[in-house]
Amino acid sequence: MPKISQKGIDMPASPIRKLTPYADQAKKSGKKIYHLNIGQPDIETPEIMLNALKNIDFKVWAYTPSEGTASYRNKLTEYYNKINYNIQPTDIIVTNGGSEAITIAMQACLNPGEEVIIPEPFYANYNGFACSSDVVVKPIISYIDNGFALPSIAEFEKVITDKTRAIAICNPNNPTGYLYSREEMEALKELCLKYDLFLFSDEAYREFCYDGKEFISPMHLEGLENHVVVFDTVSKRYSACGARIGCLITKNKELYQTALKFAQARLSPSLEGQIAGEAAVDTPDSYFQAVSQEYTARRDTLVKGLNAIEGVFCPNPGGAFYVVAQLPIDNADKFCQWMLESFDYENETVMMAPATGFYSTPGAGTNEVRLAYVLNQDDLNKALTCLQKALEIYPGRTI
Amino acid sequence: MPKISQKGIDMPASPIRKLTPYADQAKKSGKKIYHLNIGQPDIETPEIMLNALKNIDFKVWAYTPSEGTASYRNKLTEYYNKINYNIQPTDIIVTNGGSEAITIAMQACLNPGEEVIIPEPFYANYNGFACSSDVVVKPIISYIDNGFALPSIAEFEKVITDKTRAIAICNPNNPTGYLYSREEMEALKELCLKYDLFLFSDEAYREFCYDGKEFISPMHLEGLENHVVVFDTVSKRYSACGARIGCLITKNKELYQTALKFAQARLSPSLEGQIAGEAAVDTPDSYFQAVSQEYTARRDTLVKGLNAIEGVFCPNPGGAFYVVAQLPIDNADKFCQWMLESFDYENETVMMAPATGFYSTPGAGTNEVRLAYVLNQDDLNKALTCLQKALEIYPGRTI
Repeated sequence: MPKISQKGIDMPASPIRKLTPYADQAKKSGKKIYHLNIGQPDIETPEIMLNALKNIDFKVWAYTPSEGTASYRNKLTEYYNKINYNIQPTDIIVTNGGSEAITIAMQACLNPGEEVIIPEPFYANYNGFACSSDVVVKPIISYIDNGFALPSIAEFEKVITDKTRAIAICNPNNPTGYLYSREEMEALKELCLKYDLFLFSDEAYREFCYDGKEFISPMHLEGLENHVVVFDTVSKRYSACGARIGCLITKNKELYQTALKFAQARLSPSLEGQIAGEAAVDTPDSYFQAVSQEYTARRDTLVKGLNAIEGVFCPNPGGAFYVVAQLPIDNADKFCQWMLESFDYENETVMMAPATGFYSTPGAGTNEVRLAYVLNQDDLNKALTCLQKALEIYPGRTI
Repeated sequence: MPKISQKGIDMPASPIRKLTPYADQAKKSGKKIYHLNIGQPDIETPEIMLNALKNIDFKVWAYTPSEGTASYRNKLTEYYNKINYNIQPTDIIVTNGGSEAITIAMQACLNPGEEVIIPEPFYANYNGFACSSDVVVKPIISYIDNGFALPSIAEFEKVITDKTRAIAICNPNNPTGYLYSREEMEALKELCLKYDLFLFSDEAYREFCYDGKEFISPMHLEGLENHVVVFDTVSKRYSACGARIGCLITKNKELYQTALKFAQARLSPSLEGQIAGEAAVDTPDSYFQAVSQEYTARRDTLVKGLNAIEGVFCPNPGGAFYVVAQLPIDNADKFCQWMLESFDYENETVMMAPATGFYSTPGAGTNEVRLAYVLNQDDLNKALTCLQKALEIYPGRTI
């Protein structure tokens, strides 16, 4: 039997999805599960977007240009220029979800063995994209005590080597929900200019900023035009995760042309996804206002509820729809599995993502979990009750 | 300015799409172009598939499982078992087009620097997938004189080293249209067993076999279960290139679990694409009969027309919808560009793909082009007239 590759062995399983078999088993046994493990919102997709899909009128379901249709890129440009990105349609490559944009950027910017610095905890699949591209992730730790703020520039400089090619951030952050401040972004700018590094900015959660806080993209920072690569997606903004439409944006022309070659190899993103994505840009502001109100209320419920449980600590994040909470437990992987396999409260339980999968440093985050507040408040409250009851009897509890 | 990667520099531009700027310019100047350069059929997508898309009734456009929905994989299994693949739904991973299936298999089976043997000319984007995976393509040449039949097993053995991990074929072949015989497939089986190699079988054109010839998949060969990886797509079968739905099939459980980790990193294929793909499996046989008749007639027109032009040689292929033809020219890249930039016949011209892009050996295929017979016969005849007139006056003609 031929051997699989070492890369295949090294490839990490998704920490968000790896507990799925236990969840399936729990469901089979009749348990109700509150899914706080995955960033799949329950919010309805804008009607304008679904209607565009229902009203497609092509007869031949054809390829589009590899960089996406001119029509969609024009419309996206409108959207981005309303938030002052000052870009052209020729700065955009439409991708199969934000995931593909990240993979393309890693491959176009980094050779095998070269390094990207990422504050951890970070979106777990960055490990997968790096592994598949033979790129090395150099994590620098951010701390729950200050809400996972950007580590100091000195911490970045400690790990910069002659192999460092890029810094990657996710803003607002998945998994922590932290929203980087203007000062933090300015500091990153100076660092990238000083060491001539690419700055990858994953902005999947751009629309989800709370408490009137300002979202700052590196696209807003002058002088960084050749360094910035933005990753975006319709997944979260329009609750359209299953459309698999994202994009890569860069004003660096050489990088754009290089990224385009990777895009050409896989031919094109989906036609119907782009049609729907184009329609989505006209989603009325009222949709986002309602969504923002709903998420703010959910966050408040979840954060308050978590901190009310003995031994639990959860910072109050400024964006996205995740929190990372510290629990009084020995091991989050064990605990999350135990919640599915061995626990129920009134025949209900909660599925969470162990935070260990969001760290690259071995041993980090062992008593932390990520919770996505993608359920309504009633369900969130029931999930909180489950969690509280579980922590009272979990054999590996530390208080 | 930060440097792009060497991998990015090495990444090949698509030979099928790289002449697009010249085509755009020609169109702007008012020329009509017959597009024989790209495998984008003009055949209508089955109504049953488009209706499924128009009738979607979800409210939340959600992720699906990373391996695809159970419902779609069940339906696909019906399709494959009708053609005697004898598979389970758990042998299938649904992918973003066939392209992603190939990339995942390369990464799951080959480490950087390891080798895959591919008879050339081959589908140009294999070079791109290999480059992005740091995999080395070892080409062995097939010849236009015998219609691009499988090279002898001795030729394969000449290039097998301790780094060889896989053989890849495309059957029926893109770009040559060659359909591998049962004897050729049996010979490949013995070779893969002897050297314990994976056999990658790209079957995008499975439904396009002509003259009553039999299609043989390595899935039909007993004893090769742990070696075979099939790549498939809805793109050509249902003229649905823009849906970006494909799949990877393997009965090798270890490889399946490894490939799944790569699939998990990018979360899921598109939901609506899978819904439409599931509906497409019920496309009536009459659709395929009509399509097959149409392509056979087109092939006959094109092959006959090409061989009637002085100095042109084109074998008569048994499948797919491509031919590779030898032209009396100095250089196919120059010629194809000249056709767009400097030539017209009654304000019309033809866009073709230079065959050099389908070879990995430098200098091979310099007087060959690939033509896709994706236009109706009337247009094909007009394109043939253009080509004949062009070859009479092209400055680099060799007769």
